[in-house]
Amino acid sequence: MDLNADLGEGFGAWRLGDDEALLDVVTSANVACGFHAGDPSTMHRVCRRAAEKGVAVGAQVGYRDLAGFGRRRIDYDHDELRDDILYQIGALEAFCKAAGDRVRYVKPHGALYNTAAVDVVQSSAVVDAVVAYDPALPVLCQPGSVLAQRAVDAGLTVIGEGFADRGYLPDGRLVPRSAAGALVHDQRQVVRRAVRMATDGSVVAVDGSEVACPVRSICLHGDTPGAVDLAGSVRDGLRAAGLEVRPFAAGQDR
Amino acid sequence: MDLNADLGEGFGAWRLGDDEALLDVVTSANVACGFHAGDPSTMHRVCRRAAEKGVAVGAQVGYRDLAGFGRRRIDYDHDELRDDILYQIGALEAFCKAAGDRVRYVKPHGALYNTAAVDVVQSSAVVDAVVAYDPALPVLCQPGSVLAQRAVDAGLTVIGEGFADRGYLPDGRLVPRSAAGALVHDQRQVVRRAVRMATDGSVVAVDGSEVACPVRSICLHGDTPGAVDLAGSVRDGLRAAGLEVRPFAAGQDR
Amino acid sequence: MDLNADLGEGFGAWRLGDDEALLDVVTSANVACGFHAGDPSTMHRVCRRAAEKGVAVGAQVGYRDLAGFGRRRIDYDHDELRDDILYQIGALEAFCKAAGDRVRYVKPHGALYNTAAVDVVQSSAVVDAVVAYDPALPVLCQPGSVLAQRAVDAGLTVIGEGFADRGYLPDGRLVPRSAAGALVHDQRQVVRRAVRMATDGSVVAVDGSEVACPVRSICLHGDTPGAVDLAGSVRDGLRAAGLEVRPFAAGQDR
Amino acid sequence: MDLNADLGEGFGAWRLGDDEALLDVVTSANVACGFHAGDPSTMHRVCRRAAEKGVAVGAQVGYRDLAGFGRRRIDYDHDELRDDILYQIGALEAFCKAAGDRVRYVKPHGALYNTAAVDVVQSSAVVDAVVAYDPALPVLCQPGSVLAQRAVDAGLTVIGEGFADRGYLPDGRLVPRSAAGALVHDQRQVVRRAVRMATDGSVVAVDGSEVACPVRSICLHGDTPGAVDLAGSVRDGLRAAGLEVRPFAAGQDR
Repeated sequence: MDLNADLGEGFGAWRLGDDEALLDVVTSANVACGFHAGDPSTMHRVCRRAAEKGVAVGAQVGYRDLAGFGRRRIDYDHDELRDDILYQIGALEAFCKAAGDRVRYVKPHGALYNTAAVDVVQSSAVVDAVVAYDPALPVLCQPGSVLAQRAVDAGLTVIGEGFADRGYLPDGRLVPRSAAGALVHDQRQVVRRAVRMATDGSVVAVDGSEVACPVRSICLHGDTPGAVDLAGSVRDGLRAAGLEVRPFAAGQDR
Repeated sequence: MDLNADLGEGFGAWRLGDDEALLDVVTSANVACGFHAGDPSTMHRVCRRAAEKGVAVGAQVGYRDLAGFGRRRIDYDHDELRDDILYQIGALEAFCKAAGDRVRYVKPHGALYNTAAVDVVQSSAVVDAVVAYDPALPVLCQPGSVLAQRAVDAGLTVIGEGFADRGYLPDGRLVPRSAAGALVHDQRQVVRRAVRMATDGSVVAVDGSEVACPVRSICLHGDTPGAVDLAGSVRDGLRAAGLEVRPFAAGQDR
Repeated sequence: MDLNADLGEGFGAWRLGDDEALLDVVTSANVACGFHAGDPSTMHRVCRRAAEKGVAVGAQVGYRDLAGFGRRRIDYDHDELRDDILYQIGALEAFCKAAGDRVRYVKPHGALYNTAAVDVVQSSAVVDAVVAYDPALPVLCQPGSVLAQRAVDAGLTVIGEGFADRGYLPDGRLVPRSAAGALVHDQRQVVRRAVRMATDGSVVAVDGSEVACPVRSICLHGDTPGAVDLAGSVRDGLRAAGLEVRPFAAGQDR
Repeated sequence: MDLNADLGEGFGAWRLGDDEALLDVVTSANVACGFHAGDPSTMHRVCRRAAEKGVAVGAQVGYRDLAGFGRRRIDYDHDELRDDILYQIGALEAFCKAAGDRVRYVKPHGALYNTAAVDVVQSSAVVDAVVAYDPALPVLCQPGSVLAQRAVDAGLTVIGEGFADRGYLPDGRLVPRSAAGALVHDQRQVVRRAVRMATDGSVVAVDGSEVACPVRSICLHGDTPGAVDLAGSVRDGLRAAGLEVRPFAAGQDR
């Protein structure tokens, strides 16, 4: 099982989250590429440290919106979004190259993640960017999303991810953040859910039903108090359950 | 002999210069990479058209200064400048990849060009970025500049460029734009100077002396009235003098 | 009758439209405020020239989106949009002050104009910004829009504007740009429609029906070929019809 | 005596310093205006809270350089810098207006502060912006600097500020940050120096000599660990010495 988290989300003088601590826990780092967060020197530092620690680096691509941290939906034209994504992947690759490594996957950020999960135009833009850049590059996203479907249709590798600290609806989607049950606060419960996702490929939904959750990576959050602690607990829990925790991208050609 | 010019220097709704016409004249396109000019869709379009026409694409890297078009010197720290340059090279590479090609060289833009020609910190940042990205990538700059010297010291390939429409001082530097003789306005004289640079590796300075000007590329300007016409005349003049006009990067591994 | 057009929509080295020529034709200048277009020096120059020519200056406020020229809808939170608009109005006021004048009105730009015409959140943000800044400041927008209604509800002065070169639907809305009849190309017809709007407060819709169009300003476009010519023709046509062409804001306290 | 500190220096999702705690200590808040830091919603919040607490708001104007936090010198042309400053003052004024208050002074930030202290072009740009905006607006800067001199020459009010936690050279300038004695670390010593500045208008330089330091405000730093504690100690120390701590701008017309 793989553990991924967002990293490198500072900008210039501003810091967000504890990159160094997270790199000791996760196996895949979604590195911000400069459009919603992430300046070049932060990208360089995170890529170098990730390479040293054997953490796989993925391009956490977002809208061009530093002021909004990529959390506001923007009605991009298909080609402009595809090109903004290509730009970000390439920029990150430069720092992976400098660190003797490569970009290992692509994961959309924030409002782009949410929009591409349901929207044909924006999911196509993500897919077309990856196809144009390198069809061997996997896409990390939610199983069952429009993005996952279109990526599969285009012949891309899709890596499904689960959210152990988020509530699920019976249809496999996440409980909206504004609704009751959106977040799982109990740390032991989060760990149990992570282990279940990893071993059974399922999760218990808010109505008590069991939902298929075929994931190869679990997403951890790094920017909240206690986030690093929780991430470490999940990692320890997976290992205690006899699971190997390593990058899904390990050993791949790309 | 190679002919280079700045291309892709629009941003979003704003256009600058006639990219399409210039691509029919030059053999090397210095494509803006988004920091002083150049949005991702413009970069994509120019890289695709350049690939179709056999024009080599170079990374025209600049300061992060859209409002100033990269023409204001910024006192960057070495690492931040190196990382800003790495970022830009990588971003452009994505569009070259999408077009089935590669970035063929690096050329600094505007105030970075001028500063790196005389400044140890900034020239080192340019060199260190290229070394980190790919030591096989040539640097296009003025012969005799600090940047040229440091690039050679670092084992990089340096391509010297000349300015047929600019006056030269007896020591090989350009006449400052504010001084008399800075610009050569007569089109036939510009062509003659280009041919002399290409055949003899020399230029006549403002005081009438002959100055060595060992160049493998001649820089043409694309953003002034008549620029494309002048560029075409230089190209025709070089051919009439029996010279082959083609990318200096032609046939190289990188 | 007032004639308004977008001005100052360049940014840094990039120009768009012919500000100087337009200032000889229009009576109200919608000056871009730096978020979708418009750098401070352009704002300063346009405000000074407008003051010299007796042209009223309005704040053409837009989304924070230079790369998209404010033409992409962004799902702003109410408070963030209100604050972005406050910021832009204040910034423009500085240049009006330096020119011995004041901001005379507010007009949203591009996707904000279109969104605020139909959306409660974004129209409220515009209205709340104007109320917070100065409730005496008029809002220039389309009659019948959600923005117009909410502005009236908040006690603001609303100035309705018409588009003489755009087709109208029988319900008073514009024909979408993608549909047939969106644009009126014949110059004489544009002038006739402008005169009719100004004298009868009506326009002929695409189905031939007469639609009420109670406007105090006519919007002219400045960024297309022939735009300045057309604007001049409209101005001459209005005068030939015996109408006085002057700023709607003339003689107002604000 | 007045106490000033930089506030509102976050941007979007990023925070810097503890604005709320500082507003309980200082009497003048240098609010970032969006060019080196400070988004509109942060500006709005800080201006509202400052008005509630009776803290005077000043425009902390900086270079257009979010990535560099305004700490890198930029070789601006005079007019462009003047216009960037005008823009920022006006933008901040909008939020002061919304809070029922006004901008009370102008203070340059970071590299602009340092450059305007010694450079004729950049200090003139600051002065010319203030003159164009409102000649009644004071400039907060270091006594004896080029900026202070030019502001006085232009008829502006200059408020001198001192740095109780910085070492001084015998000529009244600060010890460069790279040199020994640049920082005073002992909290009690900082308080004593503040009291001496406030009562005697002098400070003891690194060589033990007494230097004139005619200040009406003392600058406190807000972005370092313990900063708010230190600021509170300085405030308490001044009061214990029988000094009234209040905005220098209190009771002024502007």
